[in-house]
Amino acid sequence: MSSTTSTTTATASAMLADLHVYDTTLRDGAQQEGLNLSVSDKLTIARQIDDLGVGFIEGGWPGANPKDTEFFARAQRELKLKNATLAAFGATRRADGRAADDQLVRALLDSGAPVVTLVAKSHTRHVELALRTTLAENLAMIRDTVTFLRGEGRRVFVDAEHFFDGYHLDRDYALECVRAAAESGAEVIALCDTNGGMLPTHVADVVHDVLSATSARIGIHCHNDTGCAVANSMAAVDAGATHVQGTVNGYGERTGNANILTVVSNLQIKQGMPLVAPEQLREATRISHSISEVTNVPPYSRQPYVGASAFAHKAGLHASALKVDPDLYQHTDPALVGNSMRTLVSDMAGRASIELKAAEMGVDLAGQPELIANLLAEVKNLELQGWTFDAADASFELLLRKHLHRSVSYFDVESWRVITDAREAGEATSEATVKLTAGGTRHVATGEGNGPVNALDHALRQALNAVYPELEKLELVDFKVRILDASHGTDAITRVLIETADGQTTWTTVGVAPNIVEASWRALVDGITYGLQRREVPAR
Amino acid sequence: MSSTTSTTTATASAMLADLHVYDTTLRDGAQQEGLNLSVSDKLTIARQIDDLGVGFIEGGWPGANPKDTEFFARAQRELKLKNATLAAFGATRRADGRAADDQLVRALLDSGAPVVTLVAKSHTRHVELALRTTLAENLAMIRDTVTFLRGEGRRVFVDAEHFFDGYHLDRDYALECVRAAAESGAEVIALCDTNGGMLPTHVADVVHDVLSATSARIGIHCHNDTGCAVANSMAAVDAGATHVQGTVNGYGERTGNANILTVVSNLQIKQGMPLVAPEQLREATRISHSISEVTNVPPYSRQPYVGASAFAHKAGLHASALKVDPDLYQHTDPALVGNSMRTLVSDMAGRASIELKAAEMGVDLAGQPELIANLLAEVKNLELQGWTFDAADASFELLLRKHLHRSVSYFDVESWRVITDAREAGEATSEATVKLTAGGTRHVATGEGNGPVNALDHALRQALNAVYPELEKLELVDFKVRILDASHGTDAITRVLIETADGQTTWTTVGVAPNIVEASWRALVDGITYGLQRREVPAR
Repeated sequence: MSSTTSTTTATASAMLADLHVYDTTLRDGAQQEGLNLSVSDKLTIARQIDDLGVGFIEGGWPGANPKDTEFFARAQRELKLKNATLAAFGATRRADGRAADDQLVRALLDSGAPVVTLVAKSHTRHVELALRTTLAENLAMIRDTVTFLRGEGRRVFVDAEHFFDGYHLDRDYALECVRAAAESGAEVIALCDTNGGMLPTHVADVVHDVLSATSARIGIHCHNDTGCAVANSMAAVDAGATHVQGTVNGYGERTGNANILTVVSNLQIKQGMPLVAPEQLREATRISHSISEVTNVPPYSRQPYVGASAFAHKAGLHASALKVDPDLYQHTDPALVGNSMRTLVSDMAGRASIELKAAEMGVDLAGQPELIANLLAEVKNLELQGWTFDAADASFELLLRKHLHRSVSYFDVESWRVITDAREAGEATSEATVKLTAGGTRHVATGEGNGPVNALDHALRQALNAVYPELEKLELVDFKVRILDASHGTDAITRVLIETADGQTTWTTVGVAPNIVEASWRALVDGITYGLQRREVPAR
Repeated sequence: MSSTTSTTTATASAMLADLHVYDTTLRDGAQQEGLNLSVSDKLTIARQIDDLGVGFIEGGWPGANPKDTEFFARAQRELKLKNATLAAFGATRRADGRAADDQLVRALLDSGAPVVTLVAKSHTRHVELALRTTLAENLAMIRDTVTFLRGEGRRVFVDAEHFFDGYHLDRDYALECVRAAAESGAEVIALCDTNGGMLPTHVADVVHDVLSATSARIGIHCHNDTGCAVANSMAAVDAGATHVQGTVNGYGERTGNANILTVVSNLQIKQGMPLVAPEQLREATRISHSISEVTNVPPYSRQPYVGASAFAHKAGLHASALKVDPDLYQHTDPALVGNSMRTLVSDMAGRASIELKAAEMGVDLAGQPELIANLLAEVKNLELQGWTFDAADASFELLLRKHLHRSVSYFDVESWRVITDAREAGEATSEATVKLTAGGTRHVATGEGNGPVNALDHALRQALNAVYPELEKLELVDFKVRILDASHGTDAITRVLIETADGQTTWTTVGVAPNIVEASWRALVDGITYGLQRREVPAR
């Protein structure tokens, strides 16, 4: 319940009104396995993150990476941030040189970013083994680089890399690094749990100790290797850190970084700290999903606050109580983060779930117990065969309409066929033929495509075009395949989810069959049928 | 670094030698969206969890769910647990009845489980609005049900549902429920953060307070709605809880439950509590992945400790230092949980990453800078086109062999073709024809299948069978499809990952093409080529 932990509001917000929210999705998040961002992707993501109202967006490492150099060049021309300040990431100068002569330090200036975030070593063994220099020279590198950049008019933040491990090994040296940065003019020293092995109590103790040794603003940068990145970030803020770093969707190397969406939601909703405007926080779910589209990392449905499942209820037990009072079964109002409560239709669904789901679609099933029982039986039977309606609301609605005798039959399919072929190293092509009856006439149409589903989609539209010109507006926008019994490889059942859009909204349909092409065909036909019904097109 | 937080070992292990590890994957975990377990699945999973060495496995809710009733019946006959005690979950008796007459309470006895875990309300509004009874009757329900089951010789644990929210609303009543359970003979009272909205400091405060009010063993049951399920569980243990509940892979409704693999790894590795034997903990990665296979929920690669990415290093910066001392860049030894360090080959890979990766495959590239540069250039170029080698080690090894001039060409493909067709409601069938030259002879073979890839796989083996009888042992075991530019639907690039097995090991290959069938074909050909090379079959 949202009221539970909001008692600390007044004191906390007064104390932390100026807490920095610092996003490093484009730099540390981009280290994630399988993540590969173009310059345009990075610009798109920066705009999305800016909508959340964070204070700082770290764009990358200019000079070290040509893509990031180009990002900052294009950002200067094209990127108009409404809320955030852009930060460039880089390292302290090379050992035994001068910051003013260091090419990579120059690249930080050239980036044009108002903030420069310098990664600095604070762990004695990393200085000796990775940097291969002396402890004294490392301190000189910090002082020289910070002083030089401050002299050039930049705000300087310092990421103290491997700080917690370094502190454990040699507390004095780790604190000396913090002091060197602060005394040279660094505005923030972010303590990094680079290897991610810390637990909240240890983080809190170290932050307390560091705060007693310096008057600089202390920040926190956590990784999730113990599953505690969010809790560690919050423990640091509790202990007095006033700068918190994270990434959207918790992207990052290994187990990822602290998820900035979760951290901001917790601090704002649970601890009452006004970090972003309420209307900005309401964008969190949209931002999370939009960025998933760009990164092409499938959204994690169990993600706190913004995940598709975060406010989804499946158990029949809960669904009946949910009808009484939703707040009894949700920890906060999903609308605060732009998410919504969902009742899942599944083989565990009771009657109450079916009723709630139908109500979400504007259908009141209150007086129809027999219809509910029949529908529930069909859902359970189909799910046994591998169908899923959790993710395919449109297919469920078609099923519901069938039971309400409100189905519309737009066409009758006689047969379909797809041929895919390739010669030597040439590109494969697909050609589909669909035969069907619509508007009282038999139509035979052939479509080509760069894949069997694409070809079938083209052939089907071609066949229906004259009778249903409304199909012009429909577009197949996503296509997901899941093999249901992986132990049998290609012999298994295939489930295909297809997302169709009409410019106003999108909907998902499901098809299941041993044959991937047949499963796709079924989802395709449902997607088009739903699209026509949605616009209340009559059968012709 | 593993040494960092092991200083508390001695005291903590003495204090908590008898901490209960209680797994609820089969009951609360099974509430997860999209998760649908058969009775056989549940038995398989129970055996896997037992290998981890947990103390208790909650099998389900007999009586409420026919599948769970059957699970306990079969468990009595078939399930021999080496370590864990089986627990049956159920609710306190209905209001205004007698436990001895309650059908669902009877079903708990009939389950034969030595432990019964009763869910009890401890939140006044839930008692009034969801149970629709009085606060006094709820206490009577707890007392009567616990007393009855104890009288029948069962160990009784009580899950105090919505405890933290209830405590906040009415502390006295929540504590009264704990006392009622304890006084009636409940061995454990698990405090449940059912809605998952708590943060670690709040959990610790409440556990402290409850411990001062009762001498019963206090347990903790957390959900991950604030991203703090693991930290909340640990905060409770820190505060004195000696029974911790969770689910494998953090399965569960909404954002999931506390991940028991993370909690156990943290407590044992970071806090030095000897919860399971070291050789059992080394099974954690295998167990996590085996259970993913059964649940058919794709493994979450960023999962702490056991995820495929948990010890994967991508950045060139890190890779060069990793060569010096791996412990500088990992928070613990991955072998402790049965995982291993991996270096990723990706467009961010530097030369050091390529070298490390080759070394993992037994190839020393030390003296060959030009080969490394060429290979790196090709990897970067292919990744730009949508290929990925992060997940497809076998395809990378084929690429490496090409650069080492150690490729073996087993056959030359002339052409291939697949036809998939269906009539009316009949099942679709696929037929593939492959034309190739192998062993000096041209082979034309046709294969049928229940999908285009299956048909191609059959045709390809048919064509190669006489020349390479070694292929008999190879089996295609998994097949994954990812559409790379979702904004274009079926017009986009398709990436296919195929996993092939030969009875000893499995390997993954990748294929990328606009046409899904062509992408599959490429991955299929790589999978077979790698399988032949692995066994050092010569080209014939």
